[in-house]
Amino acid sequence: MAHPEGTHTYRFASCMNTLPPSFLDELFRVSAVPDIISFAGGLPDASLFDVEGIKKAMESVFDDYGSIALQYTTTDGYRPLREIISRRYYSRLGLHVNPDEIQILNGSQQALDLTAKILTNPNDKILIERPGYLGAIEAFSFYRPSFSSINPDTEGPDPAELKNYIQSDNPVFFYGIPNSQNPSGLTWSDKRRKEVAEILSESDCLLYEDDAFGELFFDGKAREPVMKYLPDQGLMSGSFSKIIAPGLRIGWIRAPPQVLCAFNRAKQAADLHSNLFSQMVMTQYLEKNDIEQRTRMIAAKYGERCRLMIDLIEDLLSDSIHHTIPSGGMFLMLTLPGSMHSMNVFEHGIKEGVAVMPGIPFYIDDGGNSTIRLNFSASSETQIQIGMERLARVFHRL
Amino acid sequence: MAHPEGTHTYRFASCMNTLPPSFLDELFRVSAVPDIISFAGGLPDASLFDVEGIKKAMESVFDDYGSIALQYTTTDGYRPLREIISRRYYSRLGLHVNPDEIQILNGSQQALDLTAKILTNPNDKILIERPGYLGAIEAFSFYRPSFSSINPDTEGPDPAELKNYIQSDNPVFFYGIPNSQNPSGLTWSDKRRKEVAEILSESDCLLYEDDAFGELFFDGKAREPVMKYLPDQGLMSGSFSKIIAPGLRIGWIRAPPQVLCAFNRAKQAADLHSNLFSQMVMTQYLEKNDIEQRTRMIAAKYGERCRLMIDLIEDLLSDSIHHTIPSGGMFLMLTLPGSMHSMNVFEHGIKEGVAVMPGIPFYIDDGGNSTIRLNFSASSETQIQIGMERLARVFHRL
Repeated sequence: MAHPEGTHTYRFASCMNTLPPSFLDELFRVSAVPDIISFAGGLPDASLFDVEGIKKAMESVFDDYGSIALQYTTTDGYRPLREIISRRYYSRLGLHVNPDEIQILNGSQQALDLTAKILTNPNDKILIERPGYLGAIEAFSFYRPSFSSINPDTEGPDPAELKNYIQSDNPVFFYGIPNSQNPSGLTWSDKRRKEVAEILSESDCLLYEDDAFGELFFDGKAREPVMKYLPDQGLMSGSFSKIIAPGLRIGWIRAPPQVLCAFNRAKQAADLHSNLFSQMVMTQYLEKNDIEQRTRMIAAKYGERCRLMIDLIEDLLSDSIHHTIPSGGMFLMLTLPGSMHSMNVFEHGIKEGVAVMPGIPFYIDDGGNSTIRLNFSASSETQIQIGMERLARVFHRL
Repeated sequence: MAHPEGTHTYRFASCMNTLPPSFLDELFRVSAVPDIISFAGGLPDASLFDVEGIKKAMESVFDDYGSIALQYTTTDGYRPLREIISRRYYSRLGLHVNPDEIQILNGSQQALDLTAKILTNPNDKILIERPGYLGAIEAFSFYRPSFSSINPDTEGPDPAELKNYIQSDNPVFFYGIPNSQNPSGLTWSDKRRKEVAEILSESDCLLYEDDAFGELFFDGKAREPVMKYLPDQGLMSGSFSKIIAPGLRIGWIRAPPQVLCAFNRAKQAADLHSNLFSQMVMTQYLEKNDIEQRTRMIAAKYGERCRLMIDLIEDLLSDSIHHTIPSGGMFLMLTLPGSMHSMNVFEHGIKEGVAVMPGIPFYIDDGGNSTIRLNFSASSETQIQIGMERLARVFHRL
């Protein structure tokens, strides 16, 4: 053999050399270390999963469908599940979305991957928020786009900046999370949603509206999706990961027909179709349980934890540390004084037994050196209390 | 709004304009039309799924793990499942594969997508067999490679052609299915496996060995994987779809460490991780059932159906129609006389109530005009009898 074991030189696609450093998997690992209280991850609280209800749904899928649920299926997704999603778009948001406008995916992360795959060529511009969701930056980066990021004010992305970027960069799409953004926890105002739609409608730029958290407003009230004003230009992803169970990997995208057609093609090439059994279980579960009530219960719980965390930030941390005030979702963001570096806080935090998420991977520039994302959904109130005390010790030391 | 509904002009990635026409989803649909006997699809026989056994495994996952099975997890895959796959590589094939060399994926289709994603730039050469698996051609095409295809003789890919292509094209990888290939049903000889490994080892070209059918040899005996001779250059994908249940979407890739590391990164960006619940169910199922015995039973059954189909081809069809003689898997291939076109056979077949798969999407040139793939795994012996009689009528008419 020409190459003794271990000496082969591999050729990789160019994208592998230009990816940003990876944080996600590392975080899942840190979050799993015992005794560490982790505010770093992005997990929903597993104790709020309806294990019994899901088990019952599984049993009835077996009893009603047997081997059909274990066979191959078409790429678009289980039709009764798409019908439920369609009905919920109407009941929750007043949106008319045909089931045929919906493609089932492996969690909404897959929507991020496939969107960039079907829409972007290398060096095409993608607009994101600043900060922006790291999983989106990661997924998009494989297609080697050029990123620009838009600063928010208190109501959402700055309209003047958005208009400038669209004129100067001709971006393929603008990716944003209008509801309880990850990582900032901020929500766009109703007025700003209309302004953003208006600006985009004057251009060819599509909107990718990531709605991972729209069902987790603490007050239980839905906000108007931007897509409502922009049906032809709006892609909107959703997910059952935050409100039912992420392990089943069921999300979806709503897109205009031509775009959905490309999505379907890309999904088929990527993995043929999503887990049919899980799709049928989800359908049964949604049909037989009051998911709206359950979602309100989860959102209210996260709201209590968020308020506790904010109270502790204000009680225990220095006034020079600013925090956002989320109205929903799972995250809030701290902004540090200029003298502190987020990686320092992270490293000292681990030693003190508390994990936080440095802002770094959420920025395409160096803004993340002075921000930290905190997750409040995955910890009990006791853990939040202890974890914030540990974090206070870290801040006092630095 | 600048664009009244339905008039927006979309920009797509260049790959969307260069994809070959799609057949896969269309086929699933045709296969689902009642009264049509379909030899066109690629389904395992759902009546051979162990529904009760899988249901028991699901129940025990709920009872033993509860909400853990419904939570997010790490990208690499459930460790106990990777350990079982590792042990089976040793017990079945004598291969030492560390669980850390394995990445769990959504069926082996995802391995095809991610392989091209991490290894190829636009216009890079990929070598495939002629004919080659259409799902691979489809998955790779999104990354805009340049394809070359190698003709087989009775023992596998022609060594002289392989050597020439490697020297002239400098391909990034050679994709092949040495065991009961899809669509031809052919299996590489042991001697040819060594020759292919020897040729590749003198180059930088990786081997992607798709082992979807290695457990379905009718005689129940495993064949030596090419990867055995080429551990540093060999990627090998496997799947539980053919032997347990495709609806659970569990496959995997074995790759050298550097390549696996890139795989993990790409998988994380693509969909974070595979369905944890399904991974745990598969693990429980494999631990508590004699899967080797079950696999032999399924393979023997498919062998009977294959022999029946071949007998009927020889009895009912003209001698000018040649067929391959598979020793395993789910497919055989017909070669038509020059006067017949595979699309004609397909179209007349649908009218006659039998669906066949035209060879077209398996070729990067026009070889598919004179070949047809027949699936024998998804039909009962009665269906094979009736379907072949219908097909005979089509051939007599043409």
